[in-house]
Amino acid sequence: MLPHRGWLFDLDGTVYRGPVLIPGAAETIAALRAAGRRVVFLSNKPLYSRVEYARTLTQLGIPARSDDIVNSSVVLARYLARQDPGAPLFVIGESSLVGELQAAGFETRPDEHVRWVVIAFDRTFDYAKLNTALQAVTRHGARLIATNPDRTCPVEGGEIPDCAGMIAAVEAVTGHRVEVVVGKPSPIILGEALRALDLPPDHCAIVGDRLETDILMGKAQGLGTVLVLSGITHPGDPRIAEVAPDVVLPSIRDVLVR
Amino acid sequence: MLPHRGWLFDLDGTVYRGPVLIPGAAETIAALRAAGRRVVFLSNKPLYSRVEYARTLTQLGIPARSDDIVNSSVVLARYLARQDPGAPLFVIGESSLVGELQAAGFETRPDEHVRWVVIAFDRTFDYAKLNTALQAVTRHGARLIATNPDRTCPVEGGEIPDCAGMIAAVEAVTGHRVEVVVGKPSPIILGEALRALDLPPDHCAIVGDRLETDILMGKAQGLGTVLVLSGITHPGDPRIAEVAPDVVLPSIRDVLVR
Repeated sequence: MLPHRGWLFDLDGTVYRGPVLIPGAAETIAALRAAGRRVVFLSNKPLYSRVEYARTLTQLGIPARSDDIVNSSVVLARYLARQDPGAPLFVIGESSLVGELQAAGFETRPDEHVRWVVIAFDRTFDYAKLNTALQAVTRHGARLIATNPDRTCPVEGGEIPDCAGMIAAVEAVTGHRVEVVVGKPSPIILGEALRALDLPPDHCAIVGDRLETDILMGKAQGLGTVLVLSGITHPGDPRIAEVAPDVVLPSIRDVLVR
Repeated sequence: MLPHRGWLFDLDGTVYRGPVLIPGAAETIAALRAAGRRVVFLSNKPLYSRVEYARTLTQLGIPARSDDIVNSSVVLARYLARQDPGAPLFVIGESSLVGELQAAGFETRPDEHVRWVVIAFDRTFDYAKLNTALQAVTRHGARLIATNPDRTCPVEGGEIPDCAGMIAAVEAVTGHRVEVVVGKPSPIILGEALRALDLPPDHCAIVGDRLETDILMGKAQGLGTVLVLSGITHPGDPRIAEVAPDVVLPSIRDVLVR
């Protein structure tokens, strides 16, 4: 077992794949916790609430509370609450993100009379939302912030459009760039995770399956980095040598062995 | 009157503004025609059929037949009919574009089993269409073609998202670039207009209100270029001197005086 006191685990491709736990995941998390290590789970996905994530993990055999979850919805809500508390927002996003923002004290509005347009992975995205975003920016000077930069989201048997599609559409029609994307690889989501762990970065390790988000972000902030090959990254990928994670493992099961 | 035998007129901002004819437009077109000059009307907008455009112009006092209209829908249909006749298509676009493509012999499908994704200004754009485009490209190798590159479309009292939003969303999620955008400033739409006039470019003049589309496109192909200041371009715009149209006029009314 590596010596780090705090552990950050990516979810999709690291802890589970679709609806199925990756073998050894429950045992690894349980052993780390039994050894007094602190664990949080990180996800770029703004589609589910922390309560839903905690329930899913618990049902899969990894007991979790909502405070153990750091996803891009809660990170955006907390970040914006520090920048512009209570601001009126127009949200291109689904109901769990809207709920997270309302819980953080924001007024979410159905129209253009806002100070921020929040852009997220939104399976209900449409022309009317794109138009409201345009009017908010051009008529009311609204600023743009987004949850996550992912191009697509892996699903059973393929992939579906993710937040990059919504960001690109809004940027193209407004002629303005999104100011902040809080999700991985942003240091903003990592900062929230370290705050949840209450530990400095060099006491923590991040375990994930994506070089360009999990591993790059961890290295940039001085965490230990563990690449698992149970998700998106294939063993022969030449970028592994370039990005150079501290440890490369077949899967989460092997974390205990190291 | 300038000596050109063929005349290409932009519509929005040049011939009319919203529902109202620009003063002198009907008289100018009538005088050109009376002097034996040939006239076509050019529009990047894929929202209306040529029949609808012809009817609108006729009602406004400029008699027109659908063959006098060259808009981005018909240009795309004709261009693609030369490249890949009868190909199955998925259309991000409205009904008049679908009708134009079907009339040109294409099979328009509601699913991903296609050779091309056609992207247009589409006020019914939504996540489901974006997803179908993604699946068509990633699973079936579909290619991308678009009607027009405009960021926004001017409307009464403001602007609404135009085709650039749909293009950007599809490019962002697929990771592929649109191969061809047929509308202004593409030489493809100009080629269709010259074919309709049956005249070589140096016998023609283009009259429009946009430097970056109408005027740049005309200059690049050797047409006479007439900028009118009745639309998007303001008299003090420093780009007028850069782009250097052959003639700058207050409005279409002044075409006869020159």
